[in-house]
Amino acid sequence: MSKRTEISEIGPFGLVERLTSGLERVNGSTVVGVGDDAAVVDAGDKYMLFSTELLIEGVHFDLTYCPLKYLGHKVVVAAMSDIIAMNGTPRQLTVALGISARFSVEHIEELYEGIKSACKEYSIDLVGGDTTASLNGLTIGVSAIGEVAKDRLVRRNGARENDLVCITSDLGAAYMGLHLLERERIALDGHPNPTPEFAGHQYILRRQLKPDLRLDIIKALEAEGIVPTSMIDLTDGLASDALQICKSSGCGMRLYLERIPIAAETRAMADELHADPIVAMLNGGDDFELMFTVPLEQRDKVLHFGGVDVIGHITTHGAVLVTPEGGELPLTAPGFVHK
Amino acid sequence: MSKRTEISEIGPFGLVERLTSGLERVNGSTVVGVGDDAAVVDAGDKYMLFSTELLIEGVHFDLTYCPLKYLGHKVVVAAMSDIIAMNGTPRQLTVALGISARFSVEHIEELYEGIKSACKEYSIDLVGGDTTASLNGLTIGVSAIGEVAKDRLVRRNGARENDLVCITSDLGAAYMGLHLLERERIALDGHPNPTPEFAGHQYILRRQLKPDLRLDIIKALEAEGIVPTSMIDLTDGLASDALQICKSSGCGMRLYLERIPIAAETRAMADELHADPIVAMLNGGDDFELMFTVPLEQRDKVLHFGGVDVIGHITTHGAVLVTPEGGELPLTAPGFVHK
Repeated sequence: MSKRTEISEIGPFGLVERLTSGLERVNGSTVVGVGDDAAVVDAGDKYMLFSTELLIEGVHFDLTYCPLKYLGHKVVVAAMSDIIAMNGTPRQLTVALGISARFSVEHIEELYEGIKSACKEYSIDLVGGDTTASLNGLTIGVSAIGEVAKDRLVRRNGARENDLVCITSDLGAAYMGLHLLERERIALDGHPNPTPEFAGHQYILRRQLKPDLRLDIIKALEAEGIVPTSMIDLTDGLASDALQICKSSGCGMRLYLERIPIAAETRAMADELHADPIVAMLNGGDDFELMFTVPLEQRDKVLHFGGVDVIGHITTHGAVLVTPEGGELPLTAPGFVHK
Repeated sequence: MSKRTEISEIGPFGLVERLTSGLERVNGSTVVGVGDDAAVVDAGDKYMLFSTELLIEGVHFDLTYCPLKYLGHKVVVAAMSDIIAMNGTPRQLTVALGISARFSVEHIEELYEGIKSACKEYSIDLVGGDTTASLNGLTIGVSAIGEVAKDRLVRRNGARENDLVCITSDLGAAYMGLHLLERERIALDGHPNPTPEFAGHQYILRRQLKPDLRLDIIKALEAEGIVPTSMIDLTDGLASDALQICKSSGCGMRLYLERIPIAAETRAMADELHADPIVAMLNGGDDFELMFTVPLEQRDKVLHFGGVDVIGHITTHGAVLVTPEGGELPLTAPGFVHK
């Protein structure tokens, strides 16, 4: 091959677009293919939802500070987050592991403890478990299966002008938790009796190590009779995920900085590390919260169930963050990073 | 953790058993969980089938002799082989890639060319494509989605005494193809103009590099009105896969060595490399053929569609290979190998 284009030149989204452009569908049951949180298959009286994720040691997790049991929990949340982002109910999970010689049976059992306990917590059946050797570290291939009533499917592409942009909980905490863990790892490297300083940081650590699956939000939406016009899970950072909604829906978005919740613990950690909490919120990722849009008239209904904030609205074009002073920052997404 | 049990001590099947024992099902739609080729989910008027596989560079494939386009084809066959092993029809596929900095956009496009062309050949919709960075080489997480009429689902557990054991095509060719590729790789390592000697070996190379998905067999079974009592795809070697049927069905098996087809090219390569073609057939794996069992009275029907051989029958216990001299060799499966 003569030409060599680096993946970093076009980014992960550009790559997927290039790889999957012009795909034709041959099976009538295929409703949604590449380009949303999960694939949608028509199963007769309902839709089934599918999503596969790859989690690689050293890229997605670091076992020096992430206990295997917590990792197991997070694997389930990461996989099922794509199902609930389509307004679906998680049902089944398959896990395939690539395991290097460093790991013992007991290690993998600890990982599975976390997987099984998360499956129990969210009423998910573990229906596939495959293991294979790997040359380097631990690799986890996880597939999520869910379902949704046909009239309750939510995609990324339905946001319309004047719709309200809502998010759950607060953002950036997981990212600051990661920075705290990194700081302690470096500070204690080689120390005979490492005693990391985690006092007062339980919240951001939990958000990083043991995130919640916001299945409660999906249930609340149903209870309130709300079908969002669009939805995405916040895993790549607010900016990147907001841009996905804009792109799929062919719209713009105005978000108001002072309305986006950032926890006090997140701000405190950012201060301590001389980091910017707004960067953590915009680009940090790993929040596993939901962003969704609803028509203006559903404002009171949405605010009614608590823990949801309206942070902006949909416009015809341009995705911007409005500062308290009235300035406008364009939302931009960072690219594909090779460590 | 005080105790350390090596995974090699209990093997991959032992590990999965230990990890997934005592799993309870909470969703009524879960029909078959861990322990068969694919998971089975009740979708109302039919069953949906799911399977996830992890393919890791250096363990499952070697890019020094496997062109990326062929690898793409093989990924689809490997994933969908689990669907047809349940007598299902392949429908959708998701692919998640972990990509190291060694790979360019053009490399990944070449891989996708193979994936897309195999999807086209077998009428499969590619519905998910995710990419992420990886530290080492290429990792492929692939999930297969299929469906089957409820009265045509075939599991591993239905083989009954006196049932005939059938296999498709011939075995061991892919394994000898791999050995040929390995020989040439070593012989030509560092050579400025490597010219591998592949003349006369097209068959075994094709079986290794570009295996067929035996969807034709699934269609033939349906056309003949046959529902096998059990079925498995031959990917781990005949011995290991036969033992899976025995274990799941709670039965034994008598296979007759002289009835198991080994291609002339496979034997010739084995001779040339001073290898045993019977070992290739028993333990080689990667054949992607099918083994299935049918009641005795369906013998003529099965032989009618060609390319299927009856190689033995089901007994109450003990899995043995009967030699032409009448000797009996117990079937055994090799374990988990860490390179």
